[in-house]
Amino acid sequence: MGEFELLARIRARLPQPGPRVRLGSGDDAAIAVPGGATATSVDALIDGVHFRREWSSLAQIGAKALAVALSDLAAMGATAGEAYVVLGIPADLDEDGCIELLDGITVVAEETGTTLAGGDVTRAPALTLAMTVVGHAKSADDLVTRAGARPGDALVVTGELGGAAAGLLSLEANEERPEPIARQLEPKPRLAEGTALAAAGATAMIDLSDGLGGDANHLAQASGVGLQIDATALPLADGVTDLTLAVSGGEDYELLATIPPDRTTAIPAIPIGTVVAGEGVEIRLPGGELLEPTGYDQLG
Amino acid sequence: MGEFELLARIRARLPQPGPRVRLGSGDDAAIAVPGGATATSVDALIDGVHFRREWSSLAQIGAKALAVALSDLAAMGATAGEAYVVLGIPADLDEDGCIELLDGITVVAEETGTTLAGGDVTRAPALTLAMTVVGHAKSADDLVTRAGARPGDALVVTGELGGAAAGLLSLEANEERPEPIARQLEPKPRLAEGTALAAAGATAMIDLSDGLGGDANHLAQASGVGLQIDATALPLADGVTDLTLAVSGGEDYELLATIPPDRTTAIPAIPIGTVVAGEGVEIRLPGGELLEPTGYDQLG
Repeated sequence: MGEFELLARIRARLPQPGPRVRLGSGDDAAIAVPGGATATSVDALIDGVHFRREWSSLAQIGAKALAVALSDLAAMGATAGEAYVVLGIPADLDEDGCIELLDGITVVAEETGTTLAGGDVTRAPALTLAMTVVGHAKSADDLVTRAGARPGDALVVTGELGGAAAGLLSLEANEERPEPIARQLEPKPRLAEGTALAAAGATAMIDLSDGLGGDANHLAQASGVGLQIDATALPLADGVTDLTLAVSGGEDYELLATIPPDRTTAIPAIPIGTVVAGEGVEIRLPGGELLEPTGYDQLG
Repeated sequence: MGEFELLARIRARLPQPGPRVRLGSGDDAAIAVPGGATATSVDALIDGVHFRREWSSLAQIGAKALAVALSDLAAMGATAGEAYVVLGIPADLDEDGCIELLDGITVVAEETGTTLAGGDVTRAPALTLAMTVVGHAKSADDLVTRAGARPGDALVVTGELGGAAAGLLSLEANEERPEPIARQLEPKPRLAEGTALAAAGATAMIDLSDGLGGDANHLAQASGVGLQIDATALPLADGVTDLTLAVSGGEDYELLATIPPDRTTAIPAIPIGTVVAGEGVEIRLPGGELLEPTGYDQLG
C-alpha cells in the first residue's frame, strides 16, 4: 500500500465539500471561509483503548469516530461543518480496509452535513483515528458552554440512558442483544437537539460521554452550581433495568442541558432535575437515598 | 496518572489565548471568531515511525510536532492561529513526561503566536501526537495553493537543503554532529517567509517535508506544469556535500515557491529553477546529466 495511491483513492470517494470550504483535501492545508463563530473539538479513538476490532466492523469504527467527535459540537449547539481525519494504519490493515473505514466516516459525514476537508495517513502500531471537527454558529454568543447554568434552571436530557453501557456488557459477555450493542457501536450525535436547545435558551450543555454522574459534575463545576437529579425521572434505554448503568455508564452521547424552566415545553429533551445554588451532583432515589455516580477516566 | 488531573495541570501552563479565541481548552469545544479565511492542516507523529525517543528529548518531540504542522500553514502563506493537540500516552510515559512534552509544544506556540486552544489525551500503545493547526488570512485569495504555478515563473526555495537528512544519518550512525542533528530534531516553520512570499505574489507554494524531488513533483502535478531545477543553484546546508541529500532527503521544512521572475528581488528566497510548460521535474547537473529524485512515502 502506497501513501499517495491510498490518498488518491480516498479523495476520489469524498463527497462534494460544503459551501464554506474553498479547497478540500490535497494541498498543504484546506481553505475555508467560516464567517461567524466556530466551535472546534478533537477526539482520538485507538484500538484496544476505545474499541475492539473483533466487536466492530471497520465501517462502524470509522462512523463512531466521527459521530463522537460531532457529539461535542452538538453539545455547543453548533451546526456541523468540517472534519479532518488522522488515520494511523497498523500492519494488518490493508488498503481495502482503509477504504471501508473511510466509507463509514463518509456515511456519518453525509448524514450530518459534514465536509471531510483534510487529514493525514501514517503507519501506527494500532489502528488510530483522531478526528478534528469544526462547527459553526452565527456568533460566539449563540454557542452554549458548560458554564452558564443558574440556580432555578431545569436540568434536561435528550434521550435514553444506559444503553451504550448495557451494550458493552453484552459484547463482553458475548451475548446477542442487537439493540444495546447498536447503541454502543453506532452512537448518533444529537446535532439537531443541540441546535434546538441552544435556540430555546439553554444556559449550559455537555454531551454524555463519560456517564451522567461524571459529566453532570463537569457541568456543575464549570457553572459553579449544584445539580439535583431525580433518579426516577431518568429515561432508561430498552433493556436497562440497573440504574447504575444509566448513572455511571458512558458513551450514550445524549446531551445534558440546563434551561430556564419556562422554556422546557417545546424542546426535544426530558426534565430530570434542577439546578441549585451550591456545588456537587445529587442523584436521589424515591426513598431519599443517594446514588453514588462514578465517572470515566481516559487514563484510568 | 489521572486524565482530569493531567488536563488541569496542562491547562494551568497554557499561555493566554490569542484575540480570535473566545474560549480555550476545558469545554466540549473551543470557540473562535476567525474572520476572513482559514487554512487548516493535520499532522500526526508516532514513536518509531516519525521519531525515536532515544534520539530526542520529550520537549524536542513536542516542539517538532507543532513546528511541522505549522510548516503546512507557512506553505499557504497563512498566519499561525490555533493548534489542537491529541496526545496518545504510552504506559512508560509519566505525568512529568507529558508536561515536558507540552512545554516543548508551548515554546513553539509562543515563538509563532499560536494559541493552544484544545485537545484530547488518551492511552496509546506508542507515543502519538496529532496536531491540527488553523491559520488565517484576510481572504481565501490571499492563500497560496500548490496549483497556481505558470510557465515562466521562477522557482525559489527559502533556505538550505539536505541538513535534516544529514542529521538523520548522523543519528543513525551515532555521530556527534550538532548542526545537522538540530536541523533534524528542531525544524523551524518558515511562517514569516511564507507570508512574505504570498504578499510578493507567489503563484504556488509547498513545504519540503518529503524531499525536494518529491515535493517539487507534487507542485508540478497540481499546477499542470514542468519544473527545471539547476542542481548547482541548490543551497546546501553546512556539512552537506552529497547532492542526493538535498534532492531526496526529507524534513528540511523550507518552502518551495513559484513567483513571477520580476518579483524575485525582495523575497526571502533563493532562485533554483524555472517553471516550464509540460510536466515532471528535471534536476540538471552542470554536465547536463539529470539527477533522479526520490520522494518519501509515509506508508512505504
